[in-house]
Amino acid sequence: MSDLTDRLLRGLPGAAVVVDPEVTAAYRHDMAGFCEAGEPAVLVFPETVEQVQHVLRTATELRVPVVPQGARTGLSGGANAVDDCIVLSMVKMNRILELDPVNRIAVVQPGVVNAELSRAAAEYGLAYPPDPSSWESCTIGGNIGTGAGGLCCVKYGVTSEYVLGLDVVLADGRLLTTGRRTAKGVAGYDLTRLLVGSEGTLGVVVQAVLALRPAPAPQLALAAEFPSTDAACAAVCEVMAKGFTPSLMELMDATVVRAVNEMAQMGLPASTRALLLVAFDGKDPAAELAAVGELCRAAGASEVVPAEDRAESELLLQARRLSLPALDRLGTTMIDDVAVPRSRLAEMLRGVAGIAARQGLVIGVVCHAGDGNTHPTVVFDAADPDESARARQSFDEIMTLGLELGGTITGEHGVGLLKREWLARELGPVGLDLQRRVKEVFDPLGILNPGKTL
Amino acid sequence: MSDLTDRLLRGLPGAAVVVDPEVTAAYRHDMAGFCEAGEPAVLVFPETVEQVQHVLRTATELRVPVVPQGARTGLSGGANAVDDCIVLSMVKMNRILELDPVNRIAVVQPGVVNAELSRAAAEYGLAYPPDPSSWESCTIGGNIGTGAGGLCCVKYGVTSEYVLGLDVVLADGRLLTTGRRTAKGVAGYDLTRLLVGSEGTLGVVVQAVLALRPAPAPQLALAAEFPSTDAACAAVCEVMAKGFTPSLMELMDATVVRAVNEMAQMGLPASTRALLLVAFDGKDPAAELAAVGELCRAAGASEVVPAEDRAESELLLQARRLSLPALDRLGTTMIDDVAVPRSRLAEMLRGVAGIAARQGLVIGVVCHAGDGNTHPTVVFDAADPDESARARQSFDEIMTLGLELGGTITGEHGVGLLKREWLARELGPVGLDLQRRVKEVFDPLGILNPGKTL
Repeated sequence: MSDLTDRLLRGLPGAAVVVDPEVTAAYRHDMAGFCEAGEPAVLVFPETVEQVQHVLRTATELRVPVVPQGARTGLSGGANAVDDCIVLSMVKMNRILELDPVNRIAVVQPGVVNAELSRAAAEYGLAYPPDPSSWESCTIGGNIGTGAGGLCCVKYGVTSEYVLGLDVVLADGRLLTTGRRTAKGVAGYDLTRLLVGSEGTLGVVVQAVLALRPAPAPQLALAAEFPSTDAACAAVCEVMAKGFTPSLMELMDATVVRAVNEMAQMGLPASTRALLLVAFDGKDPAAELAAVGELCRAAGASEVVPAEDRAESELLLQARRLSLPALDRLGTTMIDDVAVPRSRLAEMLRGVAGIAARQGLVIGVVCHAGDGNTHPTVVFDAADPDESARARQSFDEIMTLGLELGGTITGEHGVGLLKREWLARELGPVGLDLQRRVKEVFDPLGILNPGKTL
Repeated sequence: MSDLTDRLLRGLPGAAVVVDPEVTAAYRHDMAGFCEAGEPAVLVFPETVEQVQHVLRTATELRVPVVPQGARTGLSGGANAVDDCIVLSMVKMNRILELDPVNRIAVVQPGVVNAELSRAAAEYGLAYPPDPSSWESCTIGGNIGTGAGGLCCVKYGVTSEYVLGLDVVLADGRLLTTGRRTAKGVAGYDLTRLLVGSEGTLGVVVQAVLALRPAPAPQLALAAEFPSTDAACAAVCEVMAKGFTPSLMELMDATVVRAVNEMAQMGLPASTRALLLVAFDGKDPAAELAAVGELCRAAGASEVVPAEDRAESELLLQARRLSLPALDRLGTTMIDDVAVPRSRLAEMLRGVAGIAARQGLVIGVVCHAGDGNTHPTVVFDAADPDESARARQSFDEIMTLGLELGGTITGEHGVGLLKREWLARELGPVGLDLQRRVKEVFDPLGILNPGKTL
């Protein structure tokens, strides 16, 4: 038994410390492509705050890197193991500790699955809005680590808006409590929000106070077919400029429409080059859909199909849900996550189409259009080194384009390993310098998720 | 001419550098009581980012403290001068640089007055929600410095939710750009939110990208009279637990009701021991008011008066607006700002009544009840040292009570000078240590607003 394992077992039960390489191998990766992963020394499953503190204290004493993990559904390599690290899986700290409808808060452990919290909140007529695609399996701790978004963000915002307070174990094992349980509070610097999206590089979240909202009514959706992405993007801008607040506004480009159409036999005409889905969940969604349908027609939509009820809405939204599975049928996929001001969305989509043509690759784009958050998805043959290289090259060109359009290299997936080299370009030298020094405050030895983000 | 003034004049026009003590005296204080203020060496009014950088570079070279100021409407002494400092007034950097209805953002300089931005946004059908009581005079830079709130927060949240990106001059004169212009973004640590509420101790905001929202419909209000604050607080909890989202929910205790009644001849019966105001700005406010009126009656309201139109609503809300002027007629007032979980609001109000009785003082409480954010306002004779001491003592007891009830020492006014000694109690030693080290990263020489917050 190694010294590391021996030390860990002084504060963890035997079953919580795993060294079997066949088991640890499954915990090397999250779901990102193009990202290397190391060989962990040991995998631990703490069940208490004290056990997490013991792990971090041990890591500090022995100068061993620690990689915190949730459900490993991340898309940027932020949860990938590094060589000889402790993989710190938080999935067994998975209890909802409080659900309080008067104060509209939940207090949860980090391993709670997003969908479980949503279902528990629903029993009180409440909702936890952030809804990443992986919501049925991803954990709240992972959501906090990445600052996760989802389809609802255009109306309800991202994870950051819902984290009121955190309990965090620091690199040296100390327990830090940030924030509050109250609706408002400005006592001291907002370390809570500093920690949200920090991808496990500043501390390990062991408990979170989350804000909940009253559950909205079921949403009603429409689908609008457009002859071009330009026309669809013009409709997006019109809807937002006219003051509508849709609960969902998703755009699929010609490549995605074709792939979904072929997979699901949707019978869309070949002239449909973009599909826009818009939904409302307010008091009179049908009236809002009617008005938005008119805006879509004025922007050039060839067909506008409003759902009449919830079941029809769900059918329309299937097209969005099938986007990535439909692209996956065409080859290995690599999803990007560039957000631009929504007024630049049309330029972004045109630029990505140009990159695809130049590189001779299929790149389909689905967007959280209301947020200007695009997910260009490169399809390639991973067995073909040249095509893989072009795929990687396309990925870089897409980020360059996003920055040129006043955007960000990541809207909701995080930097992780995948975009680390790009972060400096977005932040600039002063920003990077301060971020590095903030990291040093929290983790002077650099043992927390080293090599990620910065 | 002093060396400091001489150096400042190398990068600032003569009119921007003021040493006349009769002028600088007016810039020593914000609006907080119980807070000392020093004698500034010089007062400067920069008009460009480069001028602000020059001021900070000079301050760093000469090791001179810098106190950034907006409109000095703050209530915690955060903008008070310290001896021999540069008072850095940002009020002349007061331009709205962009107002973009498609992307729903405004780009502003820090000296823009809150109400001016609101009016400019309204021309595009948009709103900038945070609405501190001083909104007609306070600046966006000051709002960002304190993390300001207001009446609208129960539905629309605080300043922090609306700041997407910042340009900040650091203590050494470097220009830091944080955040983004996009709706979403998670690239690197969230330094934007770290800076919001940092009270000028980490850097000087010279430009901000703010999120705007579609302007809501005019709100419709009701007033409900209660025989006790307990009953009124029970109604508040019921309204929130039942999933309503009021655009305003304000509570006035017996002391405030009596003072307003006397000042404005409102004719409220002496049996009214608490007044609750609730408003909605959604699609069918009358229906929501009717439902909330029923909840109020069930909780014990003796009278429920729903407004029928906007003018009647404004009349009802007058009672809230007159609260502080009415208390001011009774003596010197000192407003506190303690937020508790809304389920503990009744205990908070009972506790404050007990403190008032024990100290033999008048303490009136107005609350942003939906947020659990109370403003206990101590009334005393400032010419009476003993009464002043008891007022100060009450203030401390109120904060102790707030912390005991799981609350925070400041919901929206900030720590400043006034609550500096209390911050350590709220944060605990680990939190305080990290906050201090974050401060050192941004301001290693400690020249930015020294003695404030930490």
